Amino acid sequence: MLLQILDYLGVAVFAVAGSIVASRRGLDFIAFLFFATLTGIGGGTLRDLLLGVPVFWTVDERYLLVCLAVSIFMWFFAHHIERLGKPVRWADACGLAAYSVMGAAKAMSVGDTVLVAVLMGVATATFGGILRDTVAGEPSAIMKPELYVSAAFAGAGSYVALTLLGFNIWIAALAGIVLALFLRGGAIERGWTLPVYKSRSPKEPN
Amino acid sequence: MLLQILDYLGVAVFAVAGSIVASRRGLDFIAFLFFATLTGIGGGTLRDLLLGVPVFWTVDERYLLVCLAVSIFMWFFAHHIERLGKPVRWADACGLAAYSVMGAAKAMSVGDTVLVAVLMGVATATFGGILRDTVAGEPSAIMKPELYVSAAFAGAGSYVALTLLGFNIWIAALAGIVLALFLRGGAIERGWTLPVYKSRSPKEPN
Amino acid sequence: MLLQILDYLGVAVFAVAGSIVASRRGLDFIAFLFFATLTGIGGGTLRDLLLGVPVFWTVDERYLLVCLAVSIFMWFFAHHIERLGKPVRWADACGLAAYSVMGAAKAMSVGDTVLVAVLMGVATATFGGILRDTVAGEPSAIMKPELYVSAAFAGAGSYVALTLLGFNIWIAALAGIVLALFLRGGAIERGWTLPVYKSRSPKEPN
Repeated sequence: MLLQILDYLGVAVFAVAGSIVASRRGLDFIAFLFFATLTGIGGGTLRDLLLGVPVFWTVDERYLLVCLAVSIFMWFFAHHIERLGKPVRWADACGLAAYSVMGAAKAMSVGDTVLVAVLMGVATATFGGILRDTVAGEPSAIMKPELYVSAAFAGAGSYVALTLLGFNIWIAALAGIVLALFLRGGAIERGWTLPVYKSRSPKEPN
Repeated sequence: MLLQILDYLGVAVFAVAGSIVASRRGLDFIAFLFFATLTGIGGGTLRDLLLGVPVFWTVDERYLLVCLAVSIFMWFFAHHIERLGKPVRWADACGLAAYSVMGAAKAMSVGDTVLVAVLMGVATATFGGILRDTVAGEPSAIMKPELYVSAAFAGAGSYVALTLLGFNIWIAALAGIVLALFLRGGAIERGWTLPVYKSRSPKEPN
Repeated sequence: MLLQILDYLGVAVFAVAGSIVASRRGLDFIAFLFFATLTGIGGGTLRDLLLGVPVFWTVDERYLLVCLAVSIFMWFFAHHIERLGKPVRWADACGLAAYSVMGAAKAMSVGDTVLVAVLMGVATATFGGILRDTVAGEPSAIMKPELYVSAAFAGAGSYVALTLLGFNIWIAALAGIVLALFLRGGAIERGWTLPVYKSRSPKEPN
């Protein structure tokens, strides 16, 4: 029950992050709805397609209602939400952290293996945002050094590792969420990045 | 039988709209084929994957033959088709209208629920074009205020609503197609748009 | 057994081509991993989703280990690999040739028809690269006149055609691979292109 509510909250948070693309570009309401839905359910949709299980929102369409409600809310209040600034990014960070663990957990529940579970966690947490940026023609999170995909990676990875080590899944989930949130929070508040690749030779045309 | 012919016609119309991207950029024949196929079958492919049913063109490969035939035709006659101007846009509008209803109808036939059916109608009608524009690096229809995705939405929505109200499915289908065509036609001939979001606060970096 | 090793090699070669995007842009290690995995397994993933069979790397996660190993290797040695220049492009060409035939063969093995098999060969060989370029915001191979998608097309097409004519599948596979490699090699060494479409009328706004 609590998990279910958290799940809707996760979709809602990502839908907010999606519809902000539409508000910044000054698009129409249908674009709000499009980007809210694409970002809100994109990652989970990819996960379910790859796992070969029914896509979650075709089974329970309340997820779509959440995206619709967020779009309507954002159409009227996006300028207030934008003004919040960091709270929006923290909400997005919570979504990222929660989904990295929930994606990995869903993959493990259908009998997949370790690396697949980690990858599914990362995909669930980040694919919606990457899709949104690609369609909108903006550089996606993967092209920036800021911790983002890596935070999802750490969350999904630590959940899977702790589960395999025999820890209770609630403890493993909590640890994964806290780690992902800590890393992403560091990126938001302190600009944490990973070291980037430095070319040690002049670039040649390929 | 009539429905089947309409279905091939829909793929053909979208394939024309796809191959025009290749002709405008002065690409080679394989690019004609690629964009014709991507645009012609992209929306229906997404719909079938999400619904978990066999992808339509893996069952009946005549859809691929349609895309091939359109590519060959366009390779020789794209400049004549381009010269038509508005007729091309009207053909595309017919495809959009027909597919919004057919996508929703297919979703309802496999037992999905209301919102899912509407979403499938919109996806079938618009995803091929969005995919084409994203791969070609052009701004997609979703980024423009012109009625496009919204016309598909109105078509799929009214079809689903009328069906639920107990209307005969043929009447519901006709009403949905006419409404979508009317809205998209208004966008083509009169430049109809939806109101866009106006920011009421200075933009802040997120 | 040999086939299996060739399959891992194909994923590895594409993963190298993917991680080079990350090294050229000076991104972090997670981006190396992301682009290596997206490019390495993207084409085969699309093929399996469209065919409705379990996605290959969810069944055998050694494919993911290959992508991980390539990413680590490239993180340390990308500048040496870049310096090789043409050998990288030839390795990519080998991947393209091998996958065009293997994609078509997998499609035929699950009972699909001729055109579908050819399309699956092309998709397996080229989709990973197209996805990589689209996410990275670069013009993809399909937008260039150079033989690339067309080489995959020739490889998959000749494999399917020879199989239907009753040739032994190993001979058909060899012929398809050699043909694709010959065409792609010609593009690399001699700049072979297909003729492009020349507009014969002034462009009109659509």
